Formats: sequence, structure tokens, C-alpha cells
Amino acid sequence: MGLDSDIEKIPDHLRTFKTPLFEFNREIIDSTADLVCAFKPQIAFYAADGLERDLELTIKYLHEQHPDIPVILDAKRGDIGSTAEMYAREVFDRYGADAVTVNPYLGGDSLEPFLNRTDKGVIILCRTSNPGATDIQDLEVQGEKLYRIISNKAAREWNRNGNVLLVVGATYPQELGEIRSLVGNMPLLVPGIGAQGGDIEKAVINGKTADGTGMIINSSRGIIYAGKGKDFAQAARAAALQLKEEINRYR
Amino acid sequence: MGLDSDIEKIPDHLRTFKTPLFEFNREIIDSTADLVCAFKPQIAFYAADGLERDLELTIKYLHEQHPDIPVILDAKRGDIGSTAEMYAREVFDRYGADAVTVNPYLGGDSLEPFLNRTDKGVIILCRTSNPGATDIQDLEVQGEKLYRIISNKAAREWNRNGNVLLVVGATYPQELGEIRSLVGNMPLLVPGIGAQGGDIEKAVINGKTADGTGMIINSSRGIIYAGKGKDFAQAARAAALQLKEEINRYR
Repeated sequence: MGLDSDIEKIPDHLRTFKTPLFEFNREIIDSTADLVCAFKPQIAFYAADGLERDLELTIKYLHEQHPDIPVILDAKRGDIGSTAEMYAREVFDRYGADAVTVNPYLGGDSLEPFLNRTDKGVIILCRTSNPGATDIQDLEVQGEKLYRIISNKAAREWNRNGNVLLVVGATYPQELGEIRSLVGNMPLLVPGIGAQGGDIEKAVINGKTADGTGMIINSSRGIIYAGKGKDFAQAARAAALQLKEEINRYR
Repeated sequence: MGLDSDIEKIPDHLRTFKTPLFEFNREIIDSTADLVCAFKPQIAFYAADGLERDLELTIKYLHEQHPDIPVILDAKRGDIGSTAEMYAREVFDRYGADAVTVNPYLGGDSLEPFLNRTDKGVIILCRTSNPGATDIQDLEVQGEKLYRIISNKAAREWNRNGNVLLVVGATYPQELGEIRSLVGNMPLLVPGIGAQGGDIEKAVINGKTADGTGMIINSSRGIIYAGKGKDFAQAARAAALQLKEEINRYR
């Protein structure tokens, strides 16, 4: 479940709290934790308004209340050497995330400070869910599209610690199937269902491993904003339950 | 000048302040502002330890004291749709930066929320200064390296508002020259001199425009940590002055 918690979209009655996004998240978490495999806060929604404290409290709460559920901090970081070390410190030490999304454009050495954290997951952007994903990720490098090159590098060069995952959008089921065949059982983080329009059946059929696992299918807005009133957390639970059942139908 | 201000590297006597990085930056700014064309705080150094307040105060101070010097927030952001909007809000509205560094891997639509801010600069990663830059950026797409494709897209597709710049490392002077010839007079942000070993003479000769301008040459550690004692700001000034003279020798 994506915690893209937006101060402008949460129910009105929460806005008077000092940590409004944390209050929102806490209720959502309490009502859905038994249904989800991972929580994924998107850092931009907190940073846009200086609500880092809400993010810190949310992750702390998740670790205390649900120590078995991993927290993915969606931050899409990417930088060189000493700066990448600082970003790793931000996501893993300051916030205590279990995994982070990163951008591969700067190359293998830019990923090292993340990959070296053997107890953490490193989720590399491969084929993203947006329309413009084609602009760069589909360019053909000697007959092979760039996202396939990234898939191969991820599975063969960058995964020596066994902590690499890839981001592959549900909006491109064919590419999802190709990437699954390139990376074996590597887990995939799959955004793009719900508001972005990805088809769940096609995504699951093309993206799952032989034993029907290997996917972290993300939904954010479709769940957390299912309700607008004081019962928003119950509405979120209903939406999460429906999505879980739909996903499992195609496993 | 890069404000990669690191709590572990600033002079000891500043660590007792409540906003130690701001105190450090303020002295550095006061002693060097007449020598620099732009200040470039790198956000990871602040975020690693929850020192966002120091970054806010630094940019506010720069705008108040030196309204003619642009502030580049080095954040290398990149995400899709609604999330990219949030990142634009973070860097431009919350922090008030004049320009930001962004990553092109997610494609043109991911850049739109930044490009649409016609009063702000959008500095797109093209050919970075690290050794691993070759991994992805040098891949050949139908005979043309990826960084050249990015250069062309930046100059032709993405620059309709005239607010695009590119990041090109000084450590690769040949590529810098190629990119200059592809993008006309587009300004280039050039990191990689100093600690990273880039040659200033080659960088300036290959990267400048016909009239000897068009480059924002960055140095961070080589200037801000030139001194370790209470006179660190004077040491930074001496280092900045030396670098400025060296740069201008080759214009």
C-alpha cells in the first residue's frame, strides 16, 4: 500500500493535528495491516510541505506495531559517491526504511552505497508506469531495449548481495512479462494499477513467478482516498480487501 | 560553490549551534559571495541528519543577502505525474530554490512539472562526473551514445520554455566538448573538478561557448573544507579566489 498521503486530500477533520499525515497514516495502517505485504510511503508528499516528522513517526509506528511488514521508502534517489552515501543514510538510518527505490541513470557505482547495505532492499527503476517511460527506457541499444539492459545488469552485476528488486509498471504487461523472464525470481515492485489504469489480471499473469509470488503490487490513491469522511480508514480497508482478492484470483 | 555541508566535516566549534550547517554556510557565503556565480546546496547532506531547517535558513539567507545570485538545489529528483509535482513543490515552493537538478530516466512527462515552472531552471543529468557514468549514459543507441540523445532531447524537445540546463562532468572533457556542440549556448552545470580530479583547463576550453561563458563550474569540498579552524571562511575565500582565477585564465 502506497502512503502517498497528501495534506490537500486527507479528510478535513485531520488537518488540525500537528502531525496530520501521521494521524491519517496511523488509522489507515491500523485498518489494513493484515491485508498488505508492504507499506510504501512516497517521500515527496511529506517533503513538499516540510512534514518529515510525519514520515519519521509513520515508519517508527510501522516498525513498532507491525515489525514483520517491510517499509519501502519511495524516494527514487540517485547520486554519486559521497552524496549517494548521504542518501543511503537518509533513507536507512534516519528514516529506518527497509528498502528504497533508486534510479540507475548514474551507473553501478552510484548504486553501491545502497547495494552495500546487505540487510536492506534496493529497488531499481527499470520500466516505469508512466506514458513517457518509452522516451529513454525503450531506446534500443544494439537491438535490445534499455529496460532489458537494466534488467540484465540488475540480475547479473548488481545483485551480488541478493538485495535487488526492480520497478516495473503494471501499465506495460508485455514488458513486465519480458522482465520476469530475464530476472528469474527477483521480486518486482509493480505500480500503475488503480488510478493509472493498469490491468490487474494481465499484470499478475505476466509478472508472477512460477509459484505465483514475486510481486509487490502497489496501490496508493485508490485505497487511501477511498473514503473522505471520518470512516476513511474503513473505506480504505474495503478497497484494500477488494484489490487483494482480485490480485489473488489470478495467482 | 557547492554547499555540501557535512555535520561531520564542519569545524568543531560550530557543532554546538542548533543549526550548525546554517552557521557554517552563512560564514562561507559572507566570505565568498562576490566570487561565485551560483550557490548549490546538495540536499542529501541536510536530509541525512534531519537538518532541513538549516537548508531552509541557508536559502532564505542567500535570497535576502544576495538576491542576484541564483540558488541551485542539487536534489536529482525524478518521478512521475503527481509525485513529480510534489517534488517541484518541495524544491521551488518550500525551499525557494531558483533551479534544481533532475534525472531524465523516467522520460519527458516526468520533467514537465519542473519545465512548466518558467521562472525556474531545470538542470537535467546528461553525462555525470563519476566513473560509472559510462554504464548507462555511454550505451549506444543506433550508433549514438545515450548522453548525446539526452543532449538533443534537452535542446530540442524539453527546452520550449528556455529554462533547461545540463549536468556534464568536468572529468570527461571530450564528452563536454561534444555536448557543447550539440546544445548551442545552453548553460552547463559542470561538477568534477577539485576532489574528483577534473582538469580545469580542458573543461573550460571544451565546455565554454564562443563568447567564453555558458558554464557553471562547481567546486564543493575543495573550497568549503579548505580550512578546519575558526578561520575556515577565510580559507574558503582564498580557495575560491584561486579557482576563479584559474577558470578565467582559460576563458
